[in-house]
Amino acid sequence: MGMTISQKILAAHAGREYVEAGELINCKLDLVLGNDVTAPVAISEFDKLGLKEVFDKERVALVPDHFTPNKDIKSAEQAKIVREFARDYGIKNYFEIGRMGIEHCLLPEQGLVGPGDLVIGADSHTCTYGALGAFATGVGSTDMAAGMATGEAWFKVPESLKFVYYGQTPPFVGGKDFILHAIGDIGVDGARYMSMEFTGEAISNLSIDNRFSMANMAIEAGGKNGIIAPDDITLAYVKGRAQRPYTVYQSDNDAVYANVFEYDVAKMEPLVAFPHLPENTRPVSEAVHVMLDQVVIGSCTNGRIEDLETAAQILKGHKVHPELRVIIFPGTQNIYLEALRKGYIETFVEAGAVISTPTCGPCLGGHMGILAKGEKALATTNRNFVGRMGHPESEVYLCNPAVAAASAIKGRITAPWEIK
Amino acid sequence: MGMTISQKILAAHAGREYVEAGELINCKLDLVLGNDVTAPVAISEFDKLGLKEVFDKERVALVPDHFTPNKDIKSAEQAKIVREFARDYGIKNYFEIGRMGIEHCLLPEQGLVGPGDLVIGADSHTCTYGALGAFATGVGSTDMAAGMATGEAWFKVPESLKFVYYGQTPPFVGGKDFILHAIGDIGVDGARYMSMEFTGEAISNLSIDNRFSMANMAIEAGGKNGIIAPDDITLAYVKGRAQRPYTVYQSDNDAVYANVFEYDVAKMEPLVAFPHLPENTRPVSEAVHVMLDQVVIGSCTNGRIEDLETAAQILKGHKVHPELRVIIFPGTQNIYLEALRKGYIETFVEAGAVISTPTCGPCLGGHMGILAKGEKALATTNRNFVGRMGHPESEVYLCNPAVAAASAIKGRITAPWEIK
Repeated sequence: MGMTISQKILAAHAGREYVEAGELINCKLDLVLGNDVTAPVAISEFDKLGLKEVFDKERVALVPDHFTPNKDIKSAEQAKIVREFARDYGIKNYFEIGRMGIEHCLLPEQGLVGPGDLVIGADSHTCTYGALGAFATGVGSTDMAAGMATGEAWFKVPESLKFVYYGQTPPFVGGKDFILHAIGDIGVDGARYMSMEFTGEAISNLSIDNRFSMANMAIEAGGKNGIIAPDDITLAYVKGRAQRPYTVYQSDNDAVYANVFEYDVAKMEPLVAFPHLPENTRPVSEAVHVMLDQVVIGSCTNGRIEDLETAAQILKGHKVHPELRVIIFPGTQNIYLEALRKGYIETFVEAGAVISTPTCGPCLGGHMGILAKGEKALATTNRNFVGRMGHPESEVYLCNPAVAAASAIKGRITAPWEIK
Repeated sequence: MGMTISQKILAAHAGREYVEAGELINCKLDLVLGNDVTAPVAISEFDKLGLKEVFDKERVALVPDHFTPNKDIKSAEQAKIVREFARDYGIKNYFEIGRMGIEHCLLPEQGLVGPGDLVIGADSHTCTYGALGAFATGVGSTDMAAGMATGEAWFKVPESLKFVYYGQTPPFVGGKDFILHAIGDIGVDGARYMSMEFTGEAISNLSIDNRFSMANMAIEAGGKNGIIAPDDITLAYVKGRAQRPYTVYQSDNDAVYANVFEYDVAKMEPLVAFPHLPENTRPVSEAVHVMLDQVVIGSCTNGRIEDLETAAQILKGHKVHPELRVIIFPGTQNIYLEALRKGYIETFVEAGAVISTPTCGPCLGGHMGILAKGEKALATTNRNFVGRMGHPESEVYLCNPAVAAASAIKGRITAPWEIK
């Protein structure tokens, strides 16, 4: 019986020829990730072990991205714990403010994750790296501590769900819509502890940035991981970046899937996920009545250069609606720099948007754009739970960057084709 | 007996030919300012009056700059109060996120303050506008409320101190050093409830941005206001901006001053104010042993285009010290845009600094760069009181943009001439 790509990666890291769904296996890790929220807890656990070293100084990544530049004294103390740990233990991949980015944009950019890797991160959106054909999943801080100590982690081999996207992708539809479609279809626990494997013609034609958006939101369907088998687009991205050798895995033709879902993307239009779950999706044309207070473009879901390009193309020559705040969060300093050189930052500022430093910011209700009671935000982020971006009586709507940019101009949820 | 420029402005706004120090007079106001911290309190007081209108919809300015983009739910609610008041009362000069800036950079830029104006603002650094030959002073939120209601305020006519700066200004010395010199000389209450009038050859040669830095810090010597008589440099700045007619006043030759201080700027070197008072000034060459955790360039004191130009010229082609965080706060969206078009933003990002949205940020311990216990920041801001930028055991050192940029490269306080 064949294996899926996810099974193959787990098997390889367990030193096994074959694993099947449901098995508990111990695997060697390629990278262990933490941020300024989760790493301090992990460091506290790690300290209890009394070890003098982490398992590999080059395979721990620490990224202070959630509440930085430091929101308050508490977050300053958290960031300091991470900084001092990195210094004391010689962690090579600690990223300081000014040379960093949102973790899930940063690690692929820096070539720290690649095809065939097994990665755990103390952040739920660690699944993002599946876009490169890695098995990557979010863990708790205790697992992170154990991972830093041993370089290993236990996994229950997940079953896999296969999502086949075929047909020609219409304008203004992208990876964000593909994944929102799946989440809307199977619900926020439809893939609980399962691998979500994305495949088909429309995926083959999908840019790497759009793939990151897709894999990023696997967790929003409860997925253990989301994964796209590496192809030429993947390898073109990885080339010149990868800091370690990598291995390309593909699912076997006779691999077993718990279920298969097929979508004709030609029939899709951009989706909007209504409060308060990512599964509450509606076509944008059915959402255009929603008045907005804030638009957020960025995050580990949609803060990459192509996302900013899409937004800039729509905003170019237009002004942000006078009653709206529009906040743009480039994913990394390098993405910021590229966007600046390509003129996108100028376009945003001319339009009346503000450009933040790379931070998770308001996505998790952190800082830099928190909502007051009754306010509504449209965001290219990944979660719209109750109070996610601020007050418990505020609302978050999720969408792709084209919808966000169009809505920024109109002050209400807007289909991109409304903007001339 | 002649009058000082400050007395003349107060007299004119009281409908008087002559006023003398110590008199209590009622004056008509040209502008009343509030921000997201102070305006909500003023609005609450204003509401108690049961009025249907402010005294003049064009003469109230509301700028949400302290904790925005909203730091947390509380600040979101504060900003919402200001936004809704502006909408309900038709306040013309409400500035939304994305179209705003730090209040004391924004109002001059927008031509809302000009020579001869009498301005109160519920923010202590309202004195900034004295750089244009206005009488501008900080007030409490209750005075702001009364000002919004009546367009008038009571003043005790202040005595004046005269500061004469003569000689040729050396490289890397600017308005920030001139004012720090004065504060170091007379102390943080040396000008309590007095007008600080800046004059002399070195002031005549001083750019408008450097003048703003000087007037901005009058309050740090306890001054009621700081003021520079308008000249061609002032009028060149005001031309094409001023939204109202303005009047140029000059002090009479026989005006009375409580004291006169004279400084030969040719003998000055850049100053650093050590913790925990702006009066604790030392020449930068006596401060170069101080190791730093963070450098802050920006604020209402030094967040203008010339400040960013100075910093960019020094940082160009260099990298921020690897153990340092450098955060840059352009004063307004327009300053940001100009800095972007001139290549300064690119220089900063290439060097490894982050660029924030225009906000007061960490200057007042607000957000975007708060210090942990024991951390040290060098900042182009205006106050270095205990805990000003975060933890009570953190330290803030004040300096000009050239010193800040040089120090960003070295990771310790650095004289600009050390950078080749």
